[in-house]
Amino acid sequence: MRIDGDTEVIAHLGYPTHSFKAPLIYNPYFAAAGINALVVPMACRTEDFATVLPALFRMDNVRGALVTMPHKVSVLRLLDATTPAVQIAGACNAVKRLPDGTLLGDQFDGEGFVRGVRGKGFDPRGKRALVVGCGGVGCAIATSLAATQPAAMALHDLRADMADGLARRLQQHYPQVEVTTGSKDPAGFDLVVNCTPLGMQAGDPLPFDVERLGAGTFVGEVVLSQAMTPLLQAAQARGCRVQVGTDMLFEMIPAYLEFFGLPATTPARLRELATLDA
Amino acid sequence: MRIDGDTEVIAHLGYPTHSFKAPLIYNPYFAAAGINALVVPMACRTEDFATVLPALFRMDNVRGALVTMPHKVSVLRLLDATTPAVQIAGACNAVKRLPDGTLLGDQFDGEGFVRGVRGKGFDPRGKRALVVGCGGVGCAIATSLAATQPAAMALHDLRADMADGLARRLQQHYPQVEVTTGSKDPAGFDLVVNCTPLGMQAGDPLPFDVERLGAGTFVGEVVLSQAMTPLLQAAQARGCRVQVGTDMLFEMIPAYLEFFGLPATTPARLRELATLDA
Repeated sequence: MRIDGDTEVIAHLGYPTHSFKAPLIYNPYFAAAGINALVVPMACRTEDFATVLPALFRMDNVRGALVTMPHKVSVLRLLDATTPAVQIAGACNAVKRLPDGTLLGDQFDGEGFVRGVRGKGFDPRGKRALVVGCGGVGCAIATSLAATQPAAMALHDLRADMADGLARRLQQHYPQVEVTTGSKDPAGFDLVVNCTPLGMQAGDPLPFDVERLGAGTFVGEVVLSQAMTPLLQAAQARGCRVQVGTDMLFEMIPAYLEFFGLPATTPARLRELATLDA
Repeated sequence: MRIDGDTEVIAHLGYPTHSFKAPLIYNPYFAAAGINALVVPMACRTEDFATVLPALFRMDNVRGALVTMPHKVSVLRLLDATTPAVQIAGACNAVKRLPDGTLLGDQFDGEGFVRGVRGKGFDPRGKRALVVGCGGVGCAIATSLAATQPAAMALHDLRADMADGLARRLQQHYPQVEVTTGSKDPAGFDLVVNCTPLGMQAGDPLPFDVERLGAGTFVGEVVLSQAMTPLLQAAQARGCRVQVGTDMLFEMIPAYLEFFGLPATTPARLRELATLDA
């Protein structure tokens, strides 16, 4: 990896940054592929984001921004244009400057999640899915799941208005999907996804009652700080198939690379090069 | 080099960035020494600097900023505190956030230049020095030279007020040094330094009339885009000793590392690790 005066920057904005995984995946790939770009972690607090994001995009060599918690939703009001995926999810993970100087936001987290479960032989079409946690990543995953034509979806968030708002947006765009809110009981679902941050910190409670999980349920996780979170361990112990957070991560990255106008590669190649465990 | 969520950033702000050398020196050293920090080039235009600098320092993991052309002078009004070196030079190259959140500016370019010529056996004390170009780096070098107690100094800039302003500040602090302005004739000087950007671009005119250089004159250069600039080649052809821009650069870096609170090393070790010619 050689950083010089021609290096382009993708700012990775979130808070806190300590569990950031993207720099450990993108940068070894950029180095191996001879792409003179760099994902740079930037620890930006909630109250500073509206100042920081536009300032970064004033720089010629800032090619884009990866946006993560706690900014995935608040970034929307700083953008000039958004894709339908962002509008439905109400959350955005990636920003780039268009040739006319305006800022476009998109998101591929949900797509990464769906690609991952499909790759494991689970097709959400016609199934019943529960999404627990309706912040940025929950909205993204629910949006991509809705596009797969599941039979029914349930959404839960401690902030009930977050779940209800997402349900309304989903039903507008996917009226054929039954969407309910208010419960996080996983009984009777084919797919349950933890989209809360619970599991990032040691001692976190489980995000829902695993005793109510059926053995046939597929359980997905978005927490990246460890592969087999306590939730996934408990689910696996009950016989469930699981998807770890990094699977979603590796699946989504080719889509982000393409969005930023950089040469892409396969999830497998990205995983081979990544230094997550270094 | 492993960039992760704990990596600290030193933003390298200037425009254009293509000839930036600091990333090629600091980053290989950080990698070799196991220091989790990164110098990141940021192409910031003049009109954006007052927005960008404070925004960057809102980020927790931005440890500091290296400031280069065209911002070395304009940065002053964005700082809460400056060192005497900055106040006299009227130019600043490095900014850090103090524990109370305020921004402190310092500069070590001039110190790097003086360390370099001393290392080559030239002691400016009691000598006559001409500084051509009184922008940020010219002010810095003149300030550090004045502190060595030369017999006389001459300053020149196409913008006469830049040279006159620097002369006034130097005379306030170093009344024993004779300071004149208005001429860039190098005849009769022991030390002549090009502190203009002339030499960065192919086809640039020489910054002063080399035909008037005495063979005993020591000629210094600040241009970094090539080692032996046309000026230094012409000076060497006349028998002058010379100092290339990168000598100043390697000499100053230990002082900047210390300023940022990072472990320092020798100029020789930095040069060994640097990838300037890669």
